[in-house]
Amino acid sequence: MRPTIDMANLICPAPAPAGDRILLAHGGGGRLTQQLIENVFLPAFANPELEARHDGAVLRAGTARLAFTTDSYVVRPLIFPGGTIGDLAVNGTVNDLAMCGARPLWLSAGFILEEGLEMDTLRAVVESMGAAAAAAGVTLVTGDTKVVDKGKGDGIFITTAGVGIIEAPNEIRPSAVMPGDSVILSGDLGRHGIAILSVREGLEFEAPITTDTAPLWAPVEVLLRAGIELHCLRDLTRGGLASALNEIAVAREVGIRVEEAEIPVSDVVRGACEILGLDSLYVANEGRFVVFVPAAQEQAALEALSSVAISKNAARIGAVSEGVHDGQVVLKTGIGGNRVLDLLSGEQLPRIC
Amino acid sequence: MRPTIDMANLICPAPAPAGDRILLAHGGGGRLTQQLIENVFLPAFANPELEARHDGAVLRAGTARLAFTTDSYVVRPLIFPGGTIGDLAVNGTVNDLAMCGARPLWLSAGFILEEGLEMDTLRAVVESMGAAAAAAGVTLVTGDTKVVDKGKGDGIFITTAGVGIIEAPNEIRPSAVMPGDSVILSGDLGRHGIAILSVREGLEFEAPITTDTAPLWAPVEVLLRAGIELHCLRDLTRGGLASALNEIAVAREVGIRVEEAEIPVSDVVRGACEILGLDSLYVANEGRFVVFVPAAQEQAALEALSSVAISKNAARIGAVSEGVHDGQVVLKTGIGGNRVLDLLSGEQLPRIC
Repeated sequence: MRPTIDMANLICPAPAPAGDRILLAHGGGGRLTQQLIENVFLPAFANPELEARHDGAVLRAGTARLAFTTDSYVVRPLIFPGGTIGDLAVNGTVNDLAMCGARPLWLSAGFILEEGLEMDTLRAVVESMGAAAAAAGVTLVTGDTKVVDKGKGDGIFITTAGVGIIEAPNEIRPSAVMPGDSVILSGDLGRHGIAILSVREGLEFEAPITTDTAPLWAPVEVLLRAGIELHCLRDLTRGGLASALNEIAVAREVGIRVEEAEIPVSDVVRGACEILGLDSLYVANEGRFVVFVPAAQEQAALEALSSVAISKNAARIGAVSEGVHDGQVVLKTGIGGNRVLDLLSGEQLPRIC
Repeated sequence: MRPTIDMANLICPAPAPAGDRILLAHGGGGRLTQQLIENVFLPAFANPELEARHDGAVLRAGTARLAFTTDSYVVRPLIFPGGTIGDLAVNGTVNDLAMCGARPLWLSAGFILEEGLEMDTLRAVVESMGAAAAAAGVTLVTGDTKVVDKGKGDGIFITTAGVGIIEAPNEIRPSAVMPGDSVILSGDLGRHGIAILSVREGLEFEAPITTDTAPLWAPVEVLLRAGIELHCLRDLTRGGLASALNEIAVAREVGIRVEEAEIPVSDVVRGACEILGLDSLYVANEGRFVVFVPAAQEQAALEALSSVAISKNAARIGAVSEGVHDGQVVLKTGIGGNRVLDLLSGEQLPRIC
């Protein structure tokens, strides 16, 4: 007997129109994240601080200039080579303050725990946060804990917010970037993303790859002490170097030209990226940043950075250029061609931080 | 054939020792939450601000005295009678600042979204946050969004942090409570918890019960303007009035005596609590607080509170008493007996905020 198909009652589920549901890529730091900010968040909260699209807000309280910032952390696994979600939650927020030219001072932490989480895991994560806070010179002064039913969370989510006091004399933000500025990168790329992916996929490399998570106030402080005029600072988290440069190029409406040959990537990360089909320029880092400085201060900036362990391999990787279309980032490749580095539309590595 | 039991190879799963996993009750604001703070968080982050066990931290930046606080929101459902998770996330953090005697000024928001969330739901929640921020006079100045895989979150979790400038001349905290202080409650109890539960359980009451979510700076400001010496303020969220009074009694090592007959509870909430087997003194509120003031200023405080809509039904409900054991809250019941109001061990209403 052949099955009959009742054509009159066939139900064809209509595909949902694009954009009416949240996708993983909305959290990837690329084009969809930008669209979410522009279409949903900015209209509801419109104000100059949010519209500056910086890593943190600048507030004035009495005589003090404060920076204020927040980040949520959903990285999986919770514990990985060289770090935990707790380290990331401390260093990530510390670094967003540092990128405002602010000395990080105070943190808050909101924990969303999943019912059934092992207490030992929580204890390990919280202890690593305490150690990271001590290393970064910040104090965790206030917090909150919520618990959600098993299957409605994923172990531990942490949202930190931070307050710091701005020590930079001038405003550090995309709008301060000037044509001709040198672009300096603080060290090699890609170690955080590859460390996470290697555990997740059970990969083993010749040399173990550990996260680069680290607090970044020390290198910013030496730049300020050396009298460098910092136009813009940006740490290279979700979406990596390419996304950070794109955000600045778009916000300031300038072109940025960078040279592949000058961008430090370790052999082991390079090899891992080739195997995994990833572009190291888009891989997340948790202890790396770019700084835009006047070309005349480039050498002094590199010297200052070389005095701090975390940025001892800092390198000039390019410049803000008149010869590039505004809002674009152009890479001069190792073989001499030019390639536009665009924002990613999709999600290269979900839940990387 | 009878089944045979191989006694030698029977596996009896050993029950996990109590306390080695996170339970829903660890997020309930009761005894287990306190134990989690004392055993896991305080040892890792030990510092005087956290140990003060107040709703927010007090920071000094230049000439300014700042309050800084955070809360995570995991309420289910996301939209309920009279409010959304977005209103709660704004008002809850605004209220923690107000409870420090600080004018709420700036908020951050970290969103953890579940893949597949409807964009319209997100838009409704974000719009309600924008409206709540405008109503409370605060600006949302910085934010972050992460997305987790479907089945690893629950629609929307929001963590807000807030910064405000302290206007109270003296320190408002449990340690400032004095024997003889009057305890004033700002209005009727239980509406938020019952509103959430009524949707969750599909209950209908004669009169609809809506959440009481509201910003509380206005009543605090009128108290300060009236020159009232505010010893301690506490909003009555998770765990309700009974838990808030317990935390203060324990932190200050005093006894607190309250009179059931003086505590306003609406007939519809009272009826709902009876049906549901809940005690309104433990049900969460999102727009109610207690204030501890010198007995000599009790009438002036009540007059000031009556001038603001949100606290027009404020009532004196008790006093800090020498005649009660230190660290205990004692309720004089409607029929004249005495009952110790203890912290709840378990979880009365999970995911209420």
